[in-house]
Amino acid sequence: MFVDVLIEKIKQKENPSIIGLDPKIEYVPEFIKEEMFEKHGKNMKGVSEAILKFNKKIVDGIYDIVPAVKPQMAYYEMYGLEGLKAFYETVKYAKEKGLLVIADGKRNDIGTTAQAYSAAYIGKTEIVQGVSETVFDVDALTVNPYLGVDGIKPFIEDCRNRGKGIFVLVKTSNKSSGQFQDILTQHGKSIYEIVAENVEEWGLSVIGKYGYSSVGAVVGATYPNQAKILRKILKRSYILVPGYGAQGGTARDVVHSFNCDGLGAVVNASRSVMCAYKSEQWKGIYTEDKFHEASRAEALRMKDDINKALNG
Amino acid sequence: MFVDVLIEKIKQKENPSIIGLDPKIEYVPEFIKEEMFEKHGKNMKGVSEAILKFNKKIVDGIYDIVPAVKPQMAYYEMYGLEGLKAFYETVKYAKEKGLLVIADGKRNDIGTTAQAYSAAYIGKTEIVQGVSETVFDVDALTVNPYLGVDGIKPFIEDCRNRGKGIFVLVKTSNKSSGQFQDILTQHGKSIYEIVAENVEEWGLSVIGKYGYSSVGAVVGATYPNQAKILRKILKRSYILVPGYGAQGGTARDVVHSFNCDGLGAVVNASRSVMCAYKSEQWKGIYTEDKFHEASRAEALRMKDDINKALNG
Repeated sequence: MFVDVLIEKIKQKENPSIIGLDPKIEYVPEFIKEEMFEKHGKNMKGVSEAILKFNKKIVDGIYDIVPAVKPQMAYYEMYGLEGLKAFYETVKYAKEKGLLVIADGKRNDIGTTAQAYSAAYIGKTEIVQGVSETVFDVDALTVNPYLGVDGIKPFIEDCRNRGKGIFVLVKTSNKSSGQFQDILTQHGKSIYEIVAENVEEWGLSVIGKYGYSSVGAVVGATYPNQAKILRKILKRSYILVPGYGAQGGTARDVVHSFNCDGLGAVVNASRSVMCAYKSEQWKGIYTEDKFHEASRAEALRMKDDINKALNG
Repeated sequence: MFVDVLIEKIKQKENPSIIGLDPKIEYVPEFIKEEMFEKHGKNMKGVSEAILKFNKKIVDGIYDIVPAVKPQMAYYEMYGLEGLKAFYETVKYAKEKGLLVIADGKRNDIGTTAQAYSAAYIGKTEIVQGVSETVFDVDALTVNPYLGVDGIKPFIEDCRNRGKGIFVLVKTSNKSSGQFQDILTQHGKSIYEIVAENVEEWGLSVIGKYGYSSVGAVVGATYPNQAKILRKILKRSYILVPGYGAQGGTARDVVHSFNCDGLGAVVNASRSVMCAYKSEQWKGIYTEDKFHEASRAEALRMKDDINKALNG
């Protein structure tokens, strides 16, 4: 079951932080771009191969210290078929290195179409009767709840049948997330609270041995007050917390998404880890060719930062 | 500008209905599957080539009578890279035949990531400074509003700069769409009304010469009462109406999404047109090898059905 494996990896590595693989081309060191542009041309293939090489080195730098990585689909889709091939290869590589992979795709659609999305990411696709194949085969996927339960159920089926997970958007980390999510209903509750109550209920059929569900929730680090409320509603849900680091969320902000047992949340950082070699803190210590070591140093700093806040 | 081209194609073809290209493998005639499995094997490649051939023949059958097609991304993503190649080739073929292409992807994310999605579908991706390429390059994309305006703005930029369009989910056609969309706020409005008010406002910067905006809305045919309300709020927005035909929406239901000028909406049907050759109405008339002629007959029937309801 996804949530049990996640918890075991968090415990083993003593680290509730995960690394976002959102590889914008400007994050990639010049020497990798040069090599791949030389080899494949200044085209989608060249960029995608550069991204893949970059990702693999980042994974090499952090696989033994974090439980999971979270590739963001948009940064692969923007390079078309070549980009999606780099996504596929990144997922494969990260899984071979023992990492869980959470695809951040925010997919959503009505019943049968949601089933097709689920097949693509966490389920299996039937080729002919009786012959099915996995497709991108990640461990978990983020999903958007706007369409209601029919759009979520097909994913939960695959959580149950294939030991996978989902994280449902509840309160996102962006500035305008309140525009619809914070609207108060006639009963005085906010939409994000109502979505959270549903997420909690949807998750009841996939509770693992530690009491947590494989149906998790996304709650941005940038909204600590809302996180406090949501931690209480989402009793059994693991919370995926984006927005730490470059987006402005601090270790002090993210503690509200955790339970007293130190479990219940994973905190994601993307840019601060991927671009650590460019940062004030690390660029004097690691040269560009050691970018993955800078990422490791930053990932360890983040781990300590969060663990200190949790134990403080 | 997307909305102007759409309106001109609707007028020219006297048809406000569009065809969804949601090619589940069970829709594809046996003889195509056999040919492609023989050629490529019973694998993702075989299925995807079968789907592509099926799609092209459907397009051949309907390109001169409908303004646009709407491929549903999930049914391509479920076949992985091969499926996405079939999507790419389908888009290219439909555009060559003079059709507008609306990708039904329901994409959504925070600002910079929404920009990456926009680049993938309606914008351009920068390879190196000064060198950009289009990726899937459809004419319009469906998007999910749950994250608020920051997640929508990047798409609107590409609507403005590249003459493209978006359709924002407002009230979806599925059974559970009311679970969050119909919630009443403390001021007595529903969430779908508030989303609609925002869609209307977001669209003001991309109004075309007929007074409609390239920022459209999705309102399911299965909710005619809500459509009446939404048509009034969405003064300038073109409405994309899914749910006609196989999902249960009738021509009488969809008229509420139109304005008195007969403009303001496009109605989508997928299964009823793609699988017309299997239907009670057409299977006695068209043999399986003439499936595209059955699709044409059904598309013409749908056109008449909707036009009659609009003029009735």
